[in-house]
Amino acid sequence: TGITSLLGSGVYTAAYPLHDVSSTLLLLYEEWANYSVFYKYQPIGLVRKYFGEKIGLYFAWLGLYTQMLIPASLVGVIVFLYGCATVDDNIPSMEICHPKNNITMCPLCDRVCSYWKLSTACGTARASHLFDNPATVFFSIFMALWAAMFMEHWKRRQMRLNYEWDLTGFEDEEDHPRAEYEFRVMQKSLRKGQKSQRKMEKLTFQDRLPAYMTNIVMLLLMIGVTFAIVFGVILYRISTKAALHMSSSLITRNHVQLTVKTTAAIINLVVILILDEVYGAVARWLTVLEAPKTDKSFEERLIFKTFILKFVNAFTPIIYIAFFRGRLVGRPGSYLYVFDSYRMEECAHGGCLMELCIQLSITMLGKQLIQNNLFEIGIPKLKKLIRFIRSKRGGFQEEERQKKLTRYETDHFLEPFGGLTPEYMEMIIQFGFVTLFVASFPLAPLFALLNNIIEIRLDAKKFVTELRRPVAARAKDIGIWYNILRGVAKVAVIINAFVISFTSDFIPRMVYQYMYSTDGSMHGFVNHTLSYFNVSHFQEGKEPMDPSHLGYPVSICRYKDYREPPWSNTPYELSKEFWAVLAVRLAFVIVFQNVVMLMNDIIDWLIPDIPKDISLQIHKEKILLVELFMKEEQGKSYILDTYLVPHKYPPHHNTTCPNCWQDTSTPSCCLHQILTLLFKCYSRN
Amino acid sequence: TGITSLLGSGVYTAAYPLHDVSSTLLLLYEEWANYSVFYKYQPIGLVRKYFGEKIGLYFAWLGLYTQMLIPASLVGVIVFLYGCATVDDNIPSMEICHPKNNITMCPLCDRVCSYWKLSTACGTARASHLFDNPATVFFSIFMALWAAMFMEHWKRRQMRLNYEWDLTGFEDEEDHPRAEYEFRVMQKSLRKGQKSQRKMEKLTFQDRLPAYMTNIVMLLLMIGVTFAIVFGVILYRISTKAALHMSSSLITRNHVQLTVKTTAAIINLVVILILDEVYGAVARWLTVLEAPKTDKSFEERLIFKTFILKFVNAFTPIIYIAFFRGRLVGRPGSYLYVFDSYRMEECAHGGCLMELCIQLSITMLGKQLIQNNLFEIGIPKLKKLIRFIRSKRGGFQEEERQKKLTRYETDHFLEPFGGLTPEYMEMIIQFGFVTLFVASFPLAPLFALLNNIIEIRLDAKKFVTELRRPVAARAKDIGIWYNILRGVAKVAVIINAFVISFTSDFIPRMVYQYMYSTDGSMHGFVNHTLSYFNVSHFQEGKEPMDPSHLGYPVSICRYKDYREPPWSNTPYELSKEFWAVLAVRLAFVIVFQNVVMLMNDIIDWLIPDIPKDISLQIHKEKILLVELFMKEEQGKSYILDTYLVPHKYPPHHNTTCPNCWQDTSTPSCCLHQILTLLFKCYSRN
Repeated sequence: TGITSLLGSGVYTAAYPLHDVSSTLLLLYEEWANYSVFYKYQPIGLVRKYFGEKIGLYFAWLGLYTQMLIPASLVGVIVFLYGCATVDDNIPSMEICHPKNNITMCPLCDRVCSYWKLSTACGTARASHLFDNPATVFFSIFMALWAAMFMEHWKRRQMRLNYEWDLTGFEDEEDHPRAEYEFRVMQKSLRKGQKSQRKMEKLTFQDRLPAYMTNIVMLLLMIGVTFAIVFGVILYRISTKAALHMSSSLITRNHVQLTVKTTAAIINLVVILILDEVYGAVARWLTVLEAPKTDKSFEERLIFKTFILKFVNAFTPIIYIAFFRGRLVGRPGSYLYVFDSYRMEECAHGGCLMELCIQLSITMLGKQLIQNNLFEIGIPKLKKLIRFIRSKRGGFQEEERQKKLTRYETDHFLEPFGGLTPEYMEMIIQFGFVTLFVASFPLAPLFALLNNIIEIRLDAKKFVTELRRPVAARAKDIGIWYNILRGVAKVAVIINAFVISFTSDFIPRMVYQYMYSTDGSMHGFVNHTLSYFNVSHFQEGKEPMDPSHLGYPVSICRYKDYREPPWSNTPYELSKEFWAVLAVRLAFVIVFQNVVMLMNDIIDWLIPDIPKDISLQIHKEKILLVELFMKEEQGKSYILDTYLVPHKYPPHHNTTCPNCWQDTSTPSCCLHQILTLLFKCYSRN
Repeated sequence: TGITSLLGSGVYTAAYPLHDVSSTLLLLYEEWANYSVFYKYQPIGLVRKYFGEKIGLYFAWLGLYTQMLIPASLVGVIVFLYGCATVDDNIPSMEICHPKNNITMCPLCDRVCSYWKLSTACGTARASHLFDNPATVFFSIFMALWAAMFMEHWKRRQMRLNYEWDLTGFEDEEDHPRAEYEFRVMQKSLRKGQKSQRKMEKLTFQDRLPAYMTNIVMLLLMIGVTFAIVFGVILYRISTKAALHMSSSLITRNHVQLTVKTTAAIINLVVILILDEVYGAVARWLTVLEAPKTDKSFEERLIFKTFILKFVNAFTPIIYIAFFRGRLVGRPGSYLYVFDSYRMEECAHGGCLMELCIQLSITMLGKQLIQNNLFEIGIPKLKKLIRFIRSKRGGFQEEERQKKLTRYETDHFLEPFGGLTPEYMEMIIQFGFVTLFVASFPLAPLFALLNNIIEIRLDAKKFVTELRRPVAARAKDIGIWYNILRGVAKVAVIINAFVISFTSDFIPRMVYQYMYSTDGSMHGFVNHTLSYFNVSHFQEGKEPMDPSHLGYPVSICRYKDYREPPWSNTPYELSKEFWAVLAVRLAFVIVFQNVVMLMNDIIDWLIPDIPKDISLQIHKEKILLVELFMKEEQGKSYILDTYLVPHKYPPHHNTTCPNCWQDTSTPSCCLHQILTLLFKCYSRN
């Protein structure tokens, strides 16, 4: 901590271990930080040797995760191909695309839009089948189990590494209080006066209350900002769509949907990228305010806050599209308006799953390409350059220095090591994309796999060539990240259940087939999901300006909802079908969640946490150890007893604690007995 | 194992440690096995000293469970009293009991029953409010959290006991293979011939396949038997009810409901008690057939099977009443018939919750009184008497023996100790009653508490005076029972969610109040839940014989269901209200389950598994120990080095493994380093 305070007060500008340009580093450079060996396992032992256990564990974890992504992306691709192969056998989209289909749909916006033919939605209907077919249900169950398997495998791998790295007996050291914490405590005792300085040893809950309150308020505020921005993007989408609809150019109008969707997704992405940086800073500031006692607790609190903010930031737009979009529309004649003029947006025909899919792929690919790769390669390189230029300006004997640059000088141009948090965070968010909405986007694991294959080598290169050598730290496990991972996997089950039952059309199709279809087939499904609207019931000023756009007068138009027809006793009320479908949807959520949780528990129970060979080995070593230890001790006592004056060293073990030595029924018990006894005897004397 | 085989071959009839009539036993007798100290904590340390850790842990667990039941039963009683206090403000039962209410209900059975007035159901409607009010929803959430708290507290208590009993370093010894297992292996190698005897060391999955298959088949068969018997009791109930209805005596007919319900519950209870014994034997037989390798695995498999069978046995009738009764009735004019003549039973007006409650209390009280107390006190006493009489008959020098009876003789009259399994099993089933259906029976914790206060002392008395002294066994934890407990607590959440939403009338009331009620009150709820039936639509021969029993002609009668009225387009179809209520019910299940699971996780996270003082103490002791150990070692080496010829005992630590001794950054790490090093050095040489 001496160096830390010197660094803190600015006496030193930096302190770092030097890179050791030995055979290890060269080997790492060749066998690890090299894209051409991407198909090989990482040399984790070497990484641990050079960078320490903590970084070794990160790369081991990343390696296992990438390895586990291989089967997931294989199955994902198969599911996607199944969707492609069956797209022509899909009766609902066939019905929509059928040339004889002449269903007239209600206008998609007020005034400027007119009635339209359902058959124009043929393209989206066909495309949405790619992501909305029975195979995705299977795939999301598969991915939930995959996540459970991944957890179990990681536990085993970690145990094996612990054994191989001789960490089985290692326990986290007690941290020293942080300087900030001690400063706060000192301040407090000064404020209180000297009289009670003795017992003023720690900050109480009351002292921390203002910081806690600020934390909660700020977190809620930041989440609120995220929500507000998402809402802003929605408004943008609604208003541009309205504006573009009014444009006279036919091509513009035809491409309205695509343009708006894509630009909105890009805006979302940019906002996510900017807010991510802001949130990182806010989380750090909040944690400093909280003044946790130890470095470990500081890190955990920081991670937790950063995770919450970044997770909300990354997934709010997606959750909006999956669960709220197109549900708050109202109905023809009684639409829901925002600011009295903008109608809430609907999904294209075929469900919102398609849009969810677009949003997911843009966010995921964009985040990975821009944030991870561009930022991760670009920024360190840039910083290195700046640091180099600055040193160039400062120094004048340029040429001499260039020649005899010592190691600590070259290392100083490198970027300082900023901790593993950003690396883990990036991967956890990616894990979220892979598991949370996998029901709607079966290609997510493939994207993640491709990214990670590059990511491993990129990180490796960064550690070997771009960063100052980090101080080696010991760790038995990946700490709080494992818990976060478990949490994400748990949330994934329920979110996937909701995506399948509410976002996709899976349940309505099933309900139609088994409850309403006359011949047990899907024929007539499209007609069944569309309600009737009498155009004379449009509100004043909301009816289309050009009612005969389709070339014939329209008296009844259709819209996608389960509502009573105009000629029923309760026109436009939610129909019996709506409630029946809703009940089945909810029942599916319950069944899906409980079945998956049960299967997860079974996996957890079937796969032992410690690999059998390791547990046997540990057991064997313990026995051998105790035997050796006993033999050695006996030898020593024998020598002591034989060669030395007796009773100079009283035989402790037979004085006050007589029974323990005899109880050697099992070796481990014996060792324990010996140690306990030793302690007790000594503490009594 | 020598004694075991001698016992097995019948050379010895029994082997047991003798009771030690010392001050410990007397103290136990006075301070523990005594009803007058029921309000005191148990002297667990003493129990452990006399009976060993395993039995000590059982009583510690039982003590904590009983202690935790105190707040649960307090809240339960308050909830029940709330029900009692609000029974007069309950609008639905007031409407049923109102003298002006003249709703005519459809007959409850074919032919012999006639129409009846809803106001005659006033009593049951009022009674069911006691167990079906908003407070029970709160109570079942409370009990789910209570179960989580109990688990956490037990983990902490166990940790504390482990520390106090010096078990922190204790590990389960590796068991020897059981005699039966070795016999089976021998048989197998004999069958295969001598040639491959070398590698025939264990039973493979294939060898065990027949046993596994038998297991599965028998378990399914036994569960089938349970189901069949439950179905038999249902048939009994239906047929007796029909028979009693035909009886001419008015009093008999008036008491039909109560008589049939009570006798059926008693039959169920008796069947449960008998089957419990049968299932215990079956589970043992199946486990012997399976031939597990070690005693520990034998015990675990036996417990698992016994648990499954007894659990199914105890809860099948209750689950039937909670979730199936009254749901498979059909509707007037199209009832569901069993064996073409018996109509499936309905619940009395006010839901099946009342009946569930009766069944629960009879089963729980009956099981506790008869099985636990009567059997547990009566049978050992009886056996002791038989053993005493038998020995009397055999011996002739009666008087002399009576005088100089040695300890091993008196102990021989005692019942041999049969393991803790029955004790735990009884408590787990009770835990099931307390948590699984607590939404319908808030007094369950109170009954359990009263039973357990007696149970502790009863068990204590049994161990001190009625049983031969058990062989003391070590244990760190309660083993598989903890997992079973966790499993029951998990199942309890989902079952309570279903009981609240499907068995109780909570959801229909909420739906009525917020969706259908005209003035936001509960007025009109009863009318809303009753559908209409046109009596002319009765099937031929099913209409009541005495249609004008009520004194006026009936053309429309009412029945409890959500169906379309006869005058709709789709008469008697499930109505929109049915689907709406179903959807809300399912939504409630999802919300309830996830909220409770989240809260459980938070409790799990907030309460550390190891009490802080214990973890500090363990840490401190470790440091001290290592220091002492190092000092002692240093002293010895110093003596060895000083007084003895050097190099006779080569200093191992400085030859091949040079670095390890220096790494003493933390004490625990240091100890680990020393031991690992020792092992590695030795195994290399």
